[in-house]
Amino acid sequence: MEYKFSDLANGLKASEIRELLKLTAQPEIISFAGGLPAPELFPLEELKKVDIAIIDKEGKAAVQYGTTEGYVPLRQHICERMKKSFMVDCGIDEVFITSGSQQGLSFIPQIFINPGDIMLVESPTYLGALNAFKLCGPKFVELPTDDKGVIPEELEKILKQYGDKIRLAYVIPEFQNPTGVTWPIERRKAFMELINQYNFPVIEDDPYGELRYDGDKVPSLKSMDTKGNIIFLGSFSKIMMPGLRVAWMVADPAIIDKCVKYKQAADLQTSSFAQRQVSFFLDMFDIDAHIKDICDLYGKRRTLMLDKMKEYFPAECKFTYPEGGLFTWVELPEGMDAKELMPKVLEKKVAYVPGGAFYPNGGGENHFRMNYSCMPEDKIVEGVKRLGDVLKEEIAKMK
Amino acid sequence: MEYKFSDLANGLKASEIRELLKLTAQPEIISFAGGLPAPELFPLEELKKVDIAIIDKEGKAAVQYGTTEGYVPLRQHICERMKKSFMVDCGIDEVFITSGSQQGLSFIPQIFINPGDIMLVESPTYLGALNAFKLCGPKFVELPTDDKGVIPEELEKILKQYGDKIRLAYVIPEFQNPTGVTWPIERRKAFMELINQYNFPVIEDDPYGELRYDGDKVPSLKSMDTKGNIIFLGSFSKIMMPGLRVAWMVADPAIIDKCVKYKQAADLQTSSFAQRQVSFFLDMFDIDAHIKDICDLYGKRRTLMLDKMKEYFPAECKFTYPEGGLFTWVELPEGMDAKELMPKVLEKKVAYVPGGAFYPNGGGENHFRMNYSCMPEDKIVEGVKRLGDVLKEEIAKMK
Repeated sequence: MEYKFSDLANGLKASEIRELLKLTAQPEIISFAGGLPAPELFPLEELKKVDIAIIDKEGKAAVQYGTTEGYVPLRQHICERMKKSFMVDCGIDEVFITSGSQQGLSFIPQIFINPGDIMLVESPTYLGALNAFKLCGPKFVELPTDDKGVIPEELEKILKQYGDKIRLAYVIPEFQNPTGVTWPIERRKAFMELINQYNFPVIEDDPYGELRYDGDKVPSLKSMDTKGNIIFLGSFSKIMMPGLRVAWMVADPAIIDKCVKYKQAADLQTSSFAQRQVSFFLDMFDIDAHIKDICDLYGKRRTLMLDKMKEYFPAECKFTYPEGGLFTWVELPEGMDAKELMPKVLEKKVAYVPGGAFYPNGGGENHFRMNYSCMPEDKIVEGVKRLGDVLKEEIAKMK
Repeated sequence: MEYKFSDLANGLKASEIRELLKLTAQPEIISFAGGLPAPELFPLEELKKVDIAIIDKEGKAAVQYGTTEGYVPLRQHICERMKKSFMVDCGIDEVFITSGSQQGLSFIPQIFINPGDIMLVESPTYLGALNAFKLCGPKFVELPTDDKGVIPEELEKILKQYGDKIRLAYVIPEFQNPTGVTWPIERRKAFMELINQYNFPVIEDDPYGELRYDGDKVPSLKSMDTKGNIIFLGSFSKIMMPGLRVAWMVADPAIIDKCVKYKQAADLQTSSFAQRQVSFFLDMFDIDAHIKDICDLYGKRRTLMLDKMKEYFPAECKFTYPEGGLFTWVELPEGMDAKELMPKVLEKKVAYVPGGAFYPNGGGENHFRMNYSCMPEDKIVEGVKRLGDVLKEEIAKMK
C-alpha cells in the first residue's frame, strides 16, 4: 500500500557513505571510501577474557536493565581518560554513555534546536553528523576553514551577522573529518574567546583525538571551557572496537540531564553488556599500549599513502597532511567533479568519497576524501597508483 | 550558565517509572513497581559459551561496523520465530533490528507523525511508549477498553469522527501493559476489519507474547494483516536478557526502509556483538525450553499474587486476571488516588506504579499496576498482605 509518511520521513536520505560502502564491499575493490578501523588490530583474545570476567564477576547485573546515564565504573574510567588524553577535569555527573558518537550527534540538536534555528558547522564537515542534525531541521551556516581549521576572522563575521539566533555549533578540531586538519592552539584560543563572548553551546567531536602519529598534542576545547559551552564527544570505536557501539559525552550536568531524559524515551539505555565489555577491558588491559599499536600501524599507512600521492597524483591535485586520525582530503582543479569521476574510478576498482556530501549547502564538488586506516600497504600503493592514472588522464583532457 | 533549550527539551520529563525505580531500589522494599525480568533465570553460563563461540567463529566481524538493517542470521532466526510464535510469514527484508523495543517505539512515530497529527492509543497504555511518542508531538486520542481490550464499537465511533486525520495507532493486544488484558480473536478480527477500512498504520507491540501461562494462543494482528498496516514489535528482553538491548520490528519493506534511514542518522546500528549474542544463543541453545522455564516461574508467581490479592485486598478493589505477561491492574473505588497513597505504601516498604501515568490525557488516578515477575514467592505474599492492610485502612476511612 501507499503510506502517508511524515515530512521528516519524506526528507530522509540514505547516508551516501553507507550506500557507497555497500557498492565498495566487493573484495576486489581497493576502497579508500570508508572510515573503518583496521580489523587486524581488534583485541579479540582480550575480549574473550573480558566477557568471561564480566559474567563471573557481575553475573546477572551485566544483562539486566541498567540506568540511562550509563554504567558507573565506565563513567569513572572516562573521567580518568578525559584528564589523561584530553586534559579535561570532569566529574561522573558530567559523563553520559551513548550508543556510539552518532547517538550523541543525534541527541544534542534535539535538545537545542527548534526547526529553522541556526547551527554553525565547519565547511566541509562530517556528513554523518549532518545527517543526524537534519532530523531537527536546522538552518546550516558554514564556517570557512583553511589548513588550520576554522578561521577566527570569518567566524567573527558570522557571529556578528547572526548573533543570538545561533543555537548550536559543531566542530572537529582534531584530525577533522573529512579534511584531516588539526587546529593549532592559537586558533583554539581565538575560537573559545569568541564563543564565550556570544555564549552558545558547541559540540566538540573528537573520535580520533588519541590517534596522533606525529606533532604535539593540542589541548581540547573542552579543557579551555570555563563557561560550560563545550559538549565533548568521545568514542571507543576507533581505539577499541566500533561494533560494540559505546561512546560518551562530557557536558554540563544540565545538558546531560536533558540528554538522559531524551534517551529514556529514545532507547532507555546503551547495552549493559557492551558497556561492561569496554569497562572491563580498561580494567584488565593496557589501552594505551593498544592505542600505540594502532598509531604505529595507521601512521605507517598515512605516511605511505601521502608519499604515494606525491609520487602518482598529478601536480594539479592538492591534499592535506593529517598528523593523526583516518583521512586526507584532496582538492582537484576547479571545474572537476569528484562524483562524476566515480564511475571511472570504480572501473579501476578503486573508491573514495566525493566531497560534495560534506557541504550542507552544496559546493565542494572538486574534492574527495581518502581513508588510509583499513587498507594494507600493498593495496594503498596500488590503489593510489590507479587513482593517479585516472586523475592524470582527466586533467590532461581539460587542457 | 543558563542554556536555551529547544521546545522539545523544555517539555521532556523523566520517565515516572524509572524515577520510581530509583526510589524503590533499596533492598528492603518489596517492589511490584518495575517490569524487570527475573534475573535468576538469565542464562549466564550459556552466554559465556555463546561469547566464546562468537569470537572463535566470527572474529573481527563481530566487533566491526555492520549494516543498519541488522545481522542477517539473526533476522533469519526472527523470520522463523515469527512463524512459530506469532503465526506470521515474513521475509528477511521485512525484519529490522532495533536497540530494544523502545527504539522501535521512538522511530515509528518519527516516520508517520507530524506535530499535531492524531495518534490512537489504548486507554490506558504503556507509559514508556507514550514518552517515546511525545517526542513527535502527536495529539493522543484514547481508545476505550474493557477486560477484552479495545471495544470495536468505540473504535468505530472514533474512526468516524477523526477519519483520515488519524496517522498511527498503538496497541498491545497480548497481556497488555499495564492491564494484563488479552484481546480474544473476535476482537482482533473486528479491529482488523476497521483498520483495513480506514487504512492507517498500527503498531502491534508484543514484548510478552511468548510468556503465556494458561489459555490458548491467539493469532497476532500481524498474522491477519493483508494490507501492510501492522507494524509488529518483538523483543528478546523478556525471553532472554534485557541488558543486551536487542529487539525487532516486522513491517512492510517501505516502512523498514524509512526506519533504516532514520537509524543511520540516529545511531548507525545496534551493537554488532549484542546481535550475535542473541543469534548464537538461538543457534546453540533451546530457547523454547528456556521460555518454558520462564513461564513456569512467572505463572506460579502470577497465580500466587492473584490468590493473595483475593485473600488480602478489600472486596472494593477489582483487578484483572492476566493469562501471561508481567502485570495485573488494580482498580480502586472511585475517588481514591493511587499516587496520593504512595507515601503510605512506601512507608510499609511496598511499591506499585500509580495508574495516572498510563493515561496520556489525564485520569485513571484510582488505578495502579502490579508486577509479579521479579519478586520471590515469600515477598509476593508479604507485599500483597502489607498492601492489603493499607488499602483496607484507606477504604475504611472513606466510609
